[in-house]
Amino acid sequence: MNDVAQIFEVGPRDGLQNESIILPVSQKVALIEKLVAAGTTNVEIGSFVHPKWVPQMADTEAVARAIKRVDGVKYWGLVPNVRGLERAIEAGMKHVAVFMSSSETHNQKNVNCTIEESFVRIRETTNIALNAGVQVRAYISTVFGCPFEGEVDFDRVLSIGDTLLAMGACQISLGDTTGMGQPLQVGDGAKRALDRWGVDQVALHLHDTRGLGQTNAFAGYLEGVRNFDSSVGGLGGCPYAPGAPGNLSTENLLGLLDSMNVQTGVEMGKIRETSSWLESSIGFSLKH
Amino acid sequence: MNDVAQIFEVGPRDGLQNESIILPVSQKVALIEKLVAAGTTNVEIGSFVHPKWVPQMADTEAVARAIKRVDGVKYWGLVPNVRGLERAIEAGMKHVAVFMSSSETHNQKNVNCTIEESFVRIRETTNIALNAGVQVRAYISTVFGCPFEGEVDFDRVLSIGDTLLAMGACQISLGDTTGMGQPLQVGDGAKRALDRWGVDQVALHLHDTRGLGQTNAFAGYLEGVRNFDSSVGGLGGCPYAPGAPGNLSTENLLGLLDSMNVQTGVEMGKIRETSSWLESSIGFSLKH
Repeated sequence: MNDVAQIFEVGPRDGLQNESIILPVSQKVALIEKLVAAGTTNVEIGSFVHPKWVPQMADTEAVARAIKRVDGVKYWGLVPNVRGLERAIEAGMKHVAVFMSSSETHNQKNVNCTIEESFVRIRETTNIALNAGVQVRAYISTVFGCPFEGEVDFDRVLSIGDTLLAMGACQISLGDTTGMGQPLQVGDGAKRALDRWGVDQVALHLHDTRGLGQTNAFAGYLEGVRNFDSSVGGLGGCPYAPGAPGNLSTENLLGLLDSMNVQTGVEMGKIRETSSWLESSIGFSLKH
Repeated sequence: MNDVAQIFEVGPRDGLQNESIILPVSQKVALIEKLVAAGTTNVEIGSFVHPKWVPQMADTEAVARAIKRVDGVKYWGLVPNVRGLERAIEAGMKHVAVFMSSSETHNQKNVNCTIEESFVRIRETTNIALNAGVQVRAYISTVFGCPFEGEVDFDRVLSIGDTLLAMGACQISLGDTTGMGQPLQVGDGAKRALDRWGVDQVALHLHDTRGLGQTNAFAGYLEGVRNFDSSVGGLGGCPYAPGAPGNLSTENLLGLLDSMNVQTGVEMGKIRETSSWLESSIGFSLKH
């Protein structure tokens, strides 16, 4: 009778990479293990980008090697290219995420190439990953608006998603990178994505920049979305998008899903304990 | 093309009556006038209950006499009975709100009588008001759950609303007094109310106790609700319902409506200034 949804926890990657403090490996490992102990079954543990670009993620290989893996849990690593993928595979990762933007300008600023060039990189990366038995998830950024270009044509988002799925990505995470989406728009986008792709292939990656994250998640839920990204305590934002703090917090998302008796397997009490632990032992001030 | 909704500002009444600090008349007047200057066209200025019960509202007559009235703005006063109504009329009020609960236990604790006794009081009060040319709005509390009784049968809510509308109330404000409602439930209740009553007769009075206020407002909006109560800065809660802080803030509601280009006539910038003024000059810490 009860509905079911999946929470994809991005705090250790999308969260921490956008905080000014750099956590030691042991604290990152503790964070990831606490999230898994709370019932999280998909967690992004870090990014295999070049440390020059994101120093917060320089030790992701060490994190990947240190975490005690739990059966049934997928540990994901973000990879920008083949070099990143190779590092991820060497560190034992079985699940990686690729990313590109639906806005040319944002893509240029974020990964320093055109959308067409991103396709080439991602195709090469995905091919190698799949051949190595590694699952690939794909993020598309700025799908509900770009801070540089403004409105983004959702037809382009769908077309990019088609291409990424055809390459072998298992799921498209639709990113409201700077929180520009509003619920009617998110609901409409979700409906169009679900009309085209399977429910397991569609995720929403929402930001709370304008305080609409939870309401946007509900709008997507009403249209049938059952996969949602969130960040414990609302850690993080986007460094290449001006004025874009605030991933949707796992607490805020889980509060919504729990209220509707949607089963996620994630325990609110333990998520709150994890946020409190981050705040008290590491000195973060989180918004939850 | 753009949709329109009405914000009914309850901060000076439902907000202030539930804060421990008591504002002087001059500050209450300044608050109300700032809200009107921000574009608010419906504002509840205070309550004409006995000062023994709500000392924060003891000076509502002085407030009513001191505010500079602006044409087109409705200034509402809460009245518990005929005595309160008489005080309101003497103070020049043309708009009053009556209230009762959809839960027997909450009604008993809040107004110390049964639901049937509330009907008698409200009928007498409404008759006198309407004969004096005073408009009457009606609140029904705990419609999405009662902290004492748990679930509330929404059929009972609708039946109470029918009775209040038949008495001559112009609008039913459906109160989620302790924030127990979740969006699927609020959407369903809104749909049932709008199937039965006119759009102008239905308002949602939401609390943010569990952080679901804005999402619940959106759920109601999707079903067609266009009247929403909110409190500047999220002032206030409910003193007779344990653990029930937090009216939905006007900022949070307006953020939603603005994002969807729903016209309210209320300016976010001026509402934020009003909250900041409350915080800095009076020492409130508000959640917004």
